Amino acid sequence: MNQDYIKPDAWSIIEEEFDPGRVKSSESLFSIGNGAMGQRANFEEHYSGPSFQGSYIGGVFYPDKTKVGWWKNGYPEYFAKVLNAPNWIGINIYVNGEALDLHTCTKVDNFRRELNMKEGFLARSFEAKMPNGIEVEVKAIRFLSIVQDELGAIKFEVTPMNQDAQIKFDPYLDAGITNTDANWEERFWKTLEVKADKGRGYVVSKTLKTEFHVGTYMQSEIFKSGEKLQLSPEVATTDDKITFSYVLDAKKGETAGIVKYAGYVTDMNHKRSDLVQAASMVLDRAVKKGFDQLKQEQKDAWAAIWEMADITISGDVKAQQGIRFNIFQLNQTYLGKDERLNIGPKGFTGEKYGGSTYWDTEAYCIPFYMATKDQNVARKLLTYRYNHLEKAKENAAKLGFSNGAALYPMVTMNGEESHNEWEITFEEIHRNGAMVFAIYNYVRFTGDFSYIPEKGLEVMIAIARFWHQRANFSKAKNKYVILGVTGPNEYENNVNNNWYTNYIAKWCIEYCLEMIDKVKDAYQEDYTRVMGLTSLNEGEMSDWREVAEGMYFPHSEEHGVYLQQDGFLDKEIIPVSQLDKKQRPINQKWSWDRILRSCYIKQADVLQGFYFFADHFSKEELKKHFDFYEPLTVHESSLSPCVHSIQAALLGRMEQAYQFYLRTSRLDLDDYNKEVEEGCHITSMAGTWMSIVEGFGGMRVENDQLSFKPQIPEQWKAYSFKVNFRDRILKVNVSADKTEFSMEGSDSLEILVNGKAVEVLPDSTVSA
Amino acid sequence: MNQDYIKPDAWSIIEEEFDPGRVKSSESLFSIGNGAMGQRANFEEHYSGPSFQGSYIGGVFYPDKTKVGWWKNGYPEYFAKVLNAPNWIGINIYVNGEALDLHTCTKVDNFRRELNMKEGFLARSFEAKMPNGIEVEVKAIRFLSIVQDELGAIKFEVTPMNQDAQIKFDPYLDAGITNTDANWEERFWKTLEVKADKGRGYVVSKTLKTEFHVGTYMQSEIFKSGEKLQLSPEVATTDDKITFSYVLDAKKGETAGIVKYAGYVTDMNHKRSDLVQAASMVLDRAVKKGFDQLKQEQKDAWAAIWEMADITISGDVKAQQGIRFNIFQLNQTYLGKDERLNIGPKGFTGEKYGGSTYWDTEAYCIPFYMATKDQNVARKLLTYRYNHLEKAKENAAKLGFSNGAALYPMVTMNGEESHNEWEITFEEIHRNGAMVFAIYNYVRFTGDFSYIPEKGLEVMIAIARFWHQRANFSKAKNKYVILGVTGPNEYENNVNNNWYTNYIAKWCIEYCLEMIDKVKDAYQEDYTRVMGLTSLNEGEMSDWREVAEGMYFPHSEEHGVYLQQDGFLDKEIIPVSQLDKKQRPINQKWSWDRILRSCYIKQADVLQGFYFFADHFSKEELKKHFDFYEPLTVHESSLSPCVHSIQAALLGRMEQAYQFYLRTSRLDLDDYNKEVEEGCHITSMAGTWMSIVEGFGGMRVENDQLSFKPQIPEQWKAYSFKVNFRDRILKVNVSADKTEFSMEGSDSLEILVNGKAVEVLPDSTVSA
Repeated sequence: MNQDYIKPDAWSIIEEEFDPGRVKSSESLFSIGNGAMGQRANFEEHYSGPSFQGSYIGGVFYPDKTKVGWWKNGYPEYFAKVLNAPNWIGINIYVNGEALDLHTCTKVDNFRRELNMKEGFLARSFEAKMPNGIEVEVKAIRFLSIVQDELGAIKFEVTPMNQDAQIKFDPYLDAGITNTDANWEERFWKTLEVKADKGRGYVVSKTLKTEFHVGTYMQSEIFKSGEKLQLSPEVATTDDKITFSYVLDAKKGETAGIVKYAGYVTDMNHKRSDLVQAASMVLDRAVKKGFDQLKQEQKDAWAAIWEMADITISGDVKAQQGIRFNIFQLNQTYLGKDERLNIGPKGFTGEKYGGSTYWDTEAYCIPFYMATKDQNVARKLLTYRYNHLEKAKENAAKLGFSNGAALYPMVTMNGEESHNEWEITFEEIHRNGAMVFAIYNYVRFTGDFSYIPEKGLEVMIAIARFWHQRANFSKAKNKYVILGVTGPNEYENNVNNNWYTNYIAKWCIEYCLEMIDKVKDAYQEDYTRVMGLTSLNEGEMSDWREVAEGMYFPHSEEHGVYLQQDGFLDKEIIPVSQLDKKQRPINQKWSWDRILRSCYIKQADVLQGFYFFADHFSKEELKKHFDFYEPLTVHESSLSPCVHSIQAALLGRMEQAYQFYLRTSRLDLDDYNKEVEEGCHITSMAGTWMSIVEGFGGMRVENDQLSFKPQIPEQWKAYSFKVNFRDRILKVNVSADKTEFSMEGSDSLEILVNGKAVEVLPDSTVSA
Repeated sequence: MNQDYIKPDAWSIIEEEFDPGRVKSSESLFSIGNGAMGQRANFEEHYSGPSFQGSYIGGVFYPDKTKVGWWKNGYPEYFAKVLNAPNWIGINIYVNGEALDLHTCTKVDNFRRELNMKEGFLARSFEAKMPNGIEVEVKAIRFLSIVQDELGAIKFEVTPMNQDAQIKFDPYLDAGITNTDANWEERFWKTLEVKADKGRGYVVSKTLKTEFHVGTYMQSEIFKSGEKLQLSPEVATTDDKITFSYVLDAKKGETAGIVKYAGYVTDMNHKRSDLVQAASMVLDRAVKKGFDQLKQEQKDAWAAIWEMADITISGDVKAQQGIRFNIFQLNQTYLGKDERLNIGPKGFTGEKYGGSTYWDTEAYCIPFYMATKDQNVARKLLTYRYNHLEKAKENAAKLGFSNGAALYPMVTMNGEESHNEWEITFEEIHRNGAMVFAIYNYVRFTGDFSYIPEKGLEVMIAIARFWHQRANFSKAKNKYVILGVTGPNEYENNVNNNWYTNYIAKWCIEYCLEMIDKVKDAYQEDYTRVMGLTSLNEGEMSDWREVAEGMYFPHSEEHGVYLQQDGFLDKEIIPVSQLDKKQRPINQKWSWDRILRSCYIKQADVLQGFYFFADHFSKEELKKHFDFYEPLTVHESSLSPCVHSIQAALLGRMEQAYQFYLRTSRLDLDDYNKEVEEGCHITSMAGTWMSIVEGFGGMRVENDQLSFKPQIPEQWKAYSFKVNFRDRILKVNVSADKTEFSMEGSDSLEILVNGKAVEVLPDSTVSA
């Protein structure tokens, strides 16, 4: 744990000590990103200590050959991996000919790193004594522009403190990089061109197999005491790398500085033949504006994001810092500009989990983006899956399904399945349900029904076909059953009749049938098109209905609860609280079979269903199920506590809700799981947002209206958040004694507060 | 399929055509072995076509680093692999300076290969026209001595047919070999010494990590027209290889010949420092005897084996060839001389399955060795597991078991688990039951109870402890259950209450308790020792008894059968006969999840229990279970048909029994599964023997007596086999109208034939 390492601050993540053992963790925490690309907080200058280099470009992946001990028929041949992309940040520093390297300095003082979330930049400063005795002061600032998302900018300043010194800046680009996460130690990149032209450097490279072409580029400006110098660099090139060398003399106390503009242009957005030219145009604009103006634009753009997305918490600076870190990282990862991109569980902060898309997006991330952005952003996330529909059909066909049934992949970059554990890849099929739930959730929240006739219905029909085929009739039960699945609780594999899976399967079919009727009535043209495209007929729909209506749900009369799966009550039921702490986390202490036959639940499973379909169940039913399942839940997934937090709040158990909230909100900042060096848990950050807005705030959509049941943890004085509900921006401010609602703009909005209608008028505040 | 490729012959496996596409398959089929080492039928001379080189030494393995896509806690770090050992057979041939290579010859005539099973040698002959126009006739014979099991011998003769020619023989040893089956392309061997001394060549090498030291050696004799020549060879050495070159001139029609004595000595049997000396002594003896005498000894030794183990079949030469091939291969694989060795599923014929020990030995092989060898051979197989008991306890401890509980490995070379699929490694725990069943079976057949107090009881106690801990009490069922297992039918994973597993678990506990009582009464000293060693007390035994007595068995009232596992009747039950042939084999056509949720059974599961515990069930019960499960069985394991053949015979369904018999008896010869190039299915060959003796012959042990219910397939005129029952050799000769029993030696034997007592007197024949 890291609990005192990051300094509490409302708007910044701050580190105030140089500790080589924490370098890799800080590289994750201080990552910067702009939705299109991201960069771990690797040092610009040479660093010989342990470090995890990472620079990532959204959508650029490599199909790494699958690694497996025992091949199973149907496994995907490739695992799409996020790629460590060419290094654009590098600036080696030489002082009197010696390389500046924090790992070899004899003394490092006043080391400070700040991720300024309000303005969107990373700053670093320190004083160091180099082995040659020269003491230098260093200040470095960098950011990835969210205004021009192909551009990064760095300002790096070196001041010799105890003598005059010659300073050499070696800004470089390096495409000779590798992935830490590579199955077969293959090289992922091939360099095509290394070129210097008019003071600019370019490296054009392509990924092997996928042939993404990427132009990495740079241009630098040199300053002494703030005055720009006109220096001609020496240029050195190798097969993969280009380095410009600028030499200048600085007197003791005089500051030598470099500004480096650099970044990526890719063939996702430009012609392959135009990459150098495209990069050159980005540089033209950047140089014209200059570092300070670019930084000001960055600040303004982040201010606009925070204006809408910020959550304030009074009375608890660590909680404030935690929630802002989560909101900041979500925005660094995805800004909703490009429907080819999505939200990887580690965002742009690490390689793990392939940087790919999981059901996390549909289950956990969409509410955050719906409420804090224009509705088009969520629609783009839905469209991402719509665009992968044909690949989902191919995936289902590989597993023996027919008639255009679709199974969305567990893990993907481009629509193809990338995962290869049979119990997950082939059996964790509930993910298909989340695709439909996200459509439902989107329509419910935004009121934008048009997505369904235009795109959603095709997805829903293909998924209904999957569920229809995947269920089979059990003569013994005289019901339809779904055998051999893994539910959201991945600590059970290949079980029969996982309640959550059966429930969402039935719901998917019924919702699809309902939407077909609705589209038939109101969108004749789309109806005709989709029916033609899918060859769906009444007979098939009637078969679906039979499966949905006859679906089996395991249930215990004795406990009055739905059972997570058949046979659940054959287990030894011992609450987690009675489990020896030395046995935990069980996924590190127990062999897999022991985990599987235990009653312990990794993350919400039955309760995930009660979260999605909260309006299908009474509070009394929720209470019974929560009291049965929560005590058995070990929360060994970062996605687990948020659902439990929301439900505890709904049950009025605010202390418990707050404890769950704490488990994720600072998960990475405090490094609970001692793994943040691999990257941050981006998707669970959206769950933290939900814990506040849906949990503490009690926000729901009921009959096209926003509804709130606000509560507040007793540790807080007040908290506030904003929600964009159908283009009306509602601000909610909760304190112990009252909740205030206010609106911007010219429309009014009727909401429900604790069940009572409240009219919020434009530019005014109402207390409830 | 290969159905007409191997020529039908009662005593030999014969190939009469040179087909480069079949070279790898024939390399498996024509393998030779002597229980201590084995050699695929690779050509002695250079061969540039596709070939799978393999020479294996019993017990010499390499711990290959585990390869896995997703690591699970508890996986073994290593997979013990059988090693391709240094090449001892190599003799490169040059004719007028050009290498003889069947792949480049412009013509190959009269190619013939014969594996002479009666005498235990491999012969090869052909006429070939070489690219330089020289036509040669070649004859080669080789064998691995079963008399001196460190020795192999080769005679290789070349006759130029159309002109005089210079012949160069280059016999060599080569330790620069690799494994085809290597996870990480590591090199497995390191060469320590390459040495020529007094006309002999030696290569001493060691395996990496395991540090087995192996001396490979050779000495050659050169002949012209049968006369030995005294030629001084040129010697060439590299880091891994030693080659002797002998040059001689042969006139047209004159035969140049070489005899090569070669093989391995290892530090399993000699001091590391003595390997060259040990090899030299083997060579002294071999050279003194000469090739012809060694070959005669080989013939005599095989005659002794056949005298006891042969099964004759009249009226069906292919069936005769098939059963002899099976008996021959079993004897080539294991001769019962060394309790450190065991029977790998591929024997010495390929690398696959790691050459390691599976439960196949206990479940399928022991009956063959008990009946056709001295009882000490089977006792050695049991002792192999006794010697691994501590490792089995360590293995169980890794999985969370305590108090000296043991879980024997699924796959092993040295007692450590080598397998790493969680559903097999951690869950296919029924293998533990087979260890105890083998002890029970051994005592039942041999009457040698002494094994139990001396060794067996410790094993049984450790296994009873495992079952006691592995079961848990289900409040819902008010019974003990065993959750999360894989049964013998590996087409079901992580199921609850596999009937076979529960049944054998209960039986293991009860048999152990019974044996403890028996040892207590009759072997006081052993009893005291074992109780002291295990700290077993009455309280613990009473806990075991509670689990055994309260064990739950899934059962269907409707069908009157025990269910393979909980929930089996939720499946769609469609007989295999109604399955589209294009869907088969399902393990190649279906994804794993589809196989798992189907009703199809890979190999006998409930029926395996009915085979082991045949005397626990009535014929009527067997009939019900056979009729329920057999139609759902796809027999996609080579171990499946034999059990079904035995049970069909017991039910009087001889045509069906014969069809099952056919599916394994020529499985490799006819290459049903198109995979024989990877090696032969050695352990299932023992199942074929059981199909005849226990199936058609109906042999059982009942109350210390042999019992027979002989039947004969209508395709056969007669068949005969011998059984060593407690040192009395009974010969059984079955024809359509009668069965004759005869005895050798001086004792008589009372047996049961179709339930009636029959006295077989010494040196006489009785008809029944």
